[in-house]
Amino acid sequence: MQTVDLRLDPRWVVPVVPRGALAAHSVIIDAGRIVAVVPVAEADRDYDATEHLRLATHALMPGLVNAHTHAAMSLLRGSADDVALAPWLQDHIWPLEKAFLSPEFVHDGTLLAAAEMLAGGVTCCNDQYFFPDAAARAYQASGMRAMLGLAVLDFPTAYAVNADGYLQSGLAARDKWKHEPLLSFSLAPHAPYTVGDASWKKIVVYARQLDLPIQTHLLETRDERSRSESEFGIDPLRRLHSLGVTGPGFIAVHGTHLEATDIELLVAHACHIVHCPTSNLKLASGIAPVTELVRRGVNVAVGTDGAASNNRLDVFGEARLAALLAKGASGDAGAIPAATALQMATLNGARALGLERDIGSLEPDKQADVIAVDLGALAHAPCYDPVSHLVHVTGRDQVTDVWVAGRRIVAERRLTSIDTDELASRARFWQDRLQSQQTSPAK
Amino acid sequence: MQTVDLRLDPRWVVPVVPRGALAAHSVIIDAGRIVAVVPVAEADRDYDATEHLRLATHALMPGLVNAHTHAAMSLLRGSADDVALAPWLQDHIWPLEKAFLSPEFVHDGTLLAAAEMLAGGVTCCNDQYFFPDAAARAYQASGMRAMLGLAVLDFPTAYAVNADGYLQSGLAARDKWKHEPLLSFSLAPHAPYTVGDASWKKIVVYARQLDLPIQTHLLETRDERSRSESEFGIDPLRRLHSLGVTGPGFIAVHGTHLEATDIELLVAHACHIVHCPTSNLKLASGIAPVTELVRRGVNVAVGTDGAASNNRLDVFGEARLAALLAKGASGDAGAIPAATALQMATLNGARALGLERDIGSLEPDKQADVIAVDLGALAHAPCYDPVSHLVHVTGRDQVTDVWVAGRRIVAERRLTSIDTDELASRARFWQDRLQSQQTSPAK
Repeated sequence: MQTVDLRLDPRWVVPVVPRGALAAHSVIIDAGRIVAVVPVAEADRDYDATEHLRLATHALMPGLVNAHTHAAMSLLRGSADDVALAPWLQDHIWPLEKAFLSPEFVHDGTLLAAAEMLAGGVTCCNDQYFFPDAAARAYQASGMRAMLGLAVLDFPTAYAVNADGYLQSGLAARDKWKHEPLLSFSLAPHAPYTVGDASWKKIVVYARQLDLPIQTHLLETRDERSRSESEFGIDPLRRLHSLGVTGPGFIAVHGTHLEATDIELLVAHACHIVHCPTSNLKLASGIAPVTELVRRGVNVAVGTDGAASNNRLDVFGEARLAALLAKGASGDAGAIPAATALQMATLNGARALGLERDIGSLEPDKQADVIAVDLGALAHAPCYDPVSHLVHVTGRDQVTDVWVAGRRIVAERRLTSIDTDELASRARFWQDRLQSQQTSPAK
Repeated sequence: MQTVDLRLDPRWVVPVVPRGALAAHSVIIDAGRIVAVVPVAEADRDYDATEHLRLATHALMPGLVNAHTHAAMSLLRGSADDVALAPWLQDHIWPLEKAFLSPEFVHDGTLLAAAEMLAGGVTCCNDQYFFPDAAARAYQASGMRAMLGLAVLDFPTAYAVNADGYLQSGLAARDKWKHEPLLSFSLAPHAPYTVGDASWKKIVVYARQLDLPIQTHLLETRDERSRSESEFGIDPLRRLHSLGVTGPGFIAVHGTHLEATDIELLVAHACHIVHCPTSNLKLASGIAPVTELVRRGVNVAVGTDGAASNNRLDVFGEARLAALLAKGASGDAGAIPAATALQMATLNGARALGLERDIGSLEPDKQADVIAVDLGALAHAPCYDPVSHLVHVTGRDQVTDVWVAGRRIVAERRLTSIDTDELASRARFWQDRLQSQQTSPAK
């Protein structure tokens, strides 16, 4: 008998690897890692667990990975609906950020986003915003796993004045936090159209020296290709490729207007795509060619984007919409079956972030990033296939318990790491400030 | 001072008519109807309420209308994913119905659907299935408002053998239940391609004699137009028009492949369209031209379709997806703003069902079909515009209280009318029967 920290006995284990649902299995956790996924009888025989939790109506699955978000923009949730990407940025988001962006804004907004994501079963996110030191403080307080994208722009914000300034500030934050086990880092130039060649070249050098992924917004809107061709004489992805950006450490976000030649290049260089279906629809950007990407073997993860363009940080919702949209857009009802959608929301996100050895599935030796989803409610009855239900029926409100690296962050629907009353009052503080600044901040 | 049954003081009233949100207002209810929506000071002065409920973080709005569903198919939820409409019907749904369709199946499935819908804020649905007497019993027990579509097909089921049989059984159920105030009836020929001209003519005669709406599935899939043209020499909608079906009592469901000439005809005859975005994507049927329909003034409501093709009976989800898809499909981020989406899910549904004088908005003299939605959770913070949040943030899990005709059916998230344990055991009974019948019923 091996003594271990925790044994979980759910109705089903949905480990993602292998696909499908296992009945009458236990998940064994010790020192923050998964020790085994074994039949209940074997668990009885081999393990003596300090804590033993029975989850009679639940599916246990890996924590969801939100592979693209701007967490602190939770404070701008619903502040600018019904406009396209360009005016949304130029007339709404950038002016608000100019007025309010600060370490305090980023800390409070990131903590608000982390609280929402954790409660909804998201144990890891890929964040891309400013003041990463403030964001890191929030993630550490929340107990959530995160990759922090170190923003780079060629124009000034309250955070930095030019590309060198962004890089210096970002890398200083990384130096400060790089030993924090739940945090990792990437370089996050905003987009090909906001970052010039000179800055991209520096980013590639740093990425190689420090072994950091690069993430950027790519081909989110239709006009990015033609603008790039007239400005640089080349389409955006081939421009990045010529600058040395592509490779298995390259995370391209959106890819809404990818064409066949782009997909060839993504395949050839093992790049990742983060699909953000809600944001792409809400900003009328378009629908990414997910069915074709998956068919060609590109690793496709899902992301919520920021709460200013979604307006939920709900990865269950994104996985469902990814499956539905793929069917509708391809005309093939068999496109993106439930098991694939669930993998996009877990393991594929881990792969995109370069964390697939640690998270994304319930396999021995992986970190114990685990969520329990109650499929016992009437709205889930009957249940012929829990994998189908997790994609096509489950709402994030069915998440009852969340562990990150073995620490129980959500217990029976309550956040254990965050003072939610204090956080709500900080959200009200920022709402009041934004509303007092503008007579009509909402529209 | 007028003595009334109930006064509700929410954070916001979102009455749908007029658009927008009212702060510091009370909703006054008496004898099952809305008496007034007035400022709190006026309520204090004019009304003495037997029950006075303060909902400090809630929006109060009209109950949602699910304008198209097959309620009893809740028992087939998730039984056939990843297939298109034709094989979904022919290889999965019709064989299952052949084996299991009975009054007990319909009663239990309808009650299960009603429980799910009520808990999610749906106070009225437009149901289209078999054995309407059994469905009526379930709705009466649940306290939900429903329009029962009396199914007509030209081929036999366990319910009837031919069109005359369907009509006789349906109209007998209507005669039995027509004095029940929460129930109404329509004639529901399945589709142009499953019902011949002779049956359509009889249906039109009954509809005129009895003043009943007609609802049918129209142009759900691409091939319906060409098949109709080769079989009947005319497209489906003009065929129905030539048979006398069109008019303000005609509810066309889906309309996924409506063309400009169809829309002209819908406009000219004041017909209604029920948009079912999730089902249309999941079965890869397509995306209805909602932006153009709304621009032309067609009344567009939303529906979930049955739980075998959705797999949620979640009208908040359908309203959000309708808004998102309209933006994505039209390329206009301003398409279907939140207030329009909310109206589609409430008042437009009432209009489609011919119930707009009684339900669909919080206006004096209307029936008190009212729901309270808690916008106080962290995932709703901050809140610059409650109407935006109700569409783009709110999940059905935020519904805390539901009144139908003034009766509180959901109180603090608990169904007051339904024994949920007994209902869960009935769902398990049917799941076991379906699973024992087939070695692989799920796929």
